[in-house]
Amino acid sequence: MSLRTLEDLFLHTLKDIYHGEKQILRALPKMAKEADSAELKEAFEMHREETSGQVERLEQVFATLDAPARGKPCEAIQGLIEEGKEVMGDAEDGAVRDAGLIGAAQAVEHYEIARYGSLIAWAKQLGRREAADLLAQNLEEEKAADRILSRLATTKVNRKAA
Amino acid sequence: MSLRTLEDLFLHTLKDIYHGEKQILRALPKMAKEADSAELKEAFEMHREETSGQVERLEQVFATLDAPARGKPCEAIQGLIEEGKEVMGDAEDGAVRDAGLIGAAQAVEHYEIARYGSLIAWAKQLGRREAADLLAQNLEEEKAADRILSRLATTKVNRKAA
Repeated sequence: MSLRTLEDLFLHTLKDIYHGEKQILRALPKMAKEADSAELKEAFEMHREETSGQVERLEQVFATLDAPARGKPCEAIQGLIEEGKEVMGDAEDGAVRDAGLIGAAQAVEHYEIARYGSLIAWAKQLGRREAADLLAQNLEEEKAADRILSRLATTKVNRKAA
Repeated sequence: MSLRTLEDLFLHTLKDIYHGEKQILRALPKMAKEADSAELKEAFEMHREETSGQVERLEQVFATLDAPARGKPCEAIQGLIEEGKEVMGDAEDGAVRDAGLIGAAQAVEHYEIARYGSLIAWAKQLGRREAADLLAQNLEEEKAADRILSRLATTKVNRKAA
């Protein structure tokens, strides 16, 4: 894909995160299943619901651009999800696996936080206020999910794993 | 690698970020070379210097564990760096390439912010105060680098790219 304009870069990155969110939607039920702690299971299930809404918002962003909602395989998210799978396969102890799952999930959250940050800045620069607002809602949910996981790690999971 | 304890998970993730930082050390000069804006070039060069210091700090963390400083190929960071290369190859316009390079670099910063956040929480839980302090210094540098790139994007690069 040739990137001539900021609009091209915006659409390219939007396809990237759209593919990413759909991959995460598929990974979260597996992560919930592998989680040992009931609270972590619940956090992953809740975030799956949120992610489903985020995918819909991304489809609305494509609509504001009159572009078809289409993903583009994203190597970064695939690598991040692979890391999560690796932890699930390698961790023998339930609490240690939970600590690793939280770490892997937060790496994914932060990838999304970075991507939404760039997309919002570009949307604003391009005068695409509606797209910026939709993306800002996704960003806030990712930040909240990251905070929930940090709290769960430091108040419960890490202590149990140590 | 079998992860039986939180200590195992800590060492596993430390190897992962050590490999990651070394990959970034190799990627940053290429990113500086590709950057169109003199300020972005400078930001990447400055961050290369910082990253070199971060690699040394990680070696000190390995030393506190009496473990050899050894990296472990990290698929996430490889995917993130690939995305950066893709932007460099695809962007025809200098300012659009700069906007894409900043986005790719911030995705890397956020990956590191997430990883250092987990490592610091685990080090504290394990009573490894010295390791936690060293990692916290790396975390603060990554956060600062992320802020510098955001400012550069919103005050200059994005406007030029639009």
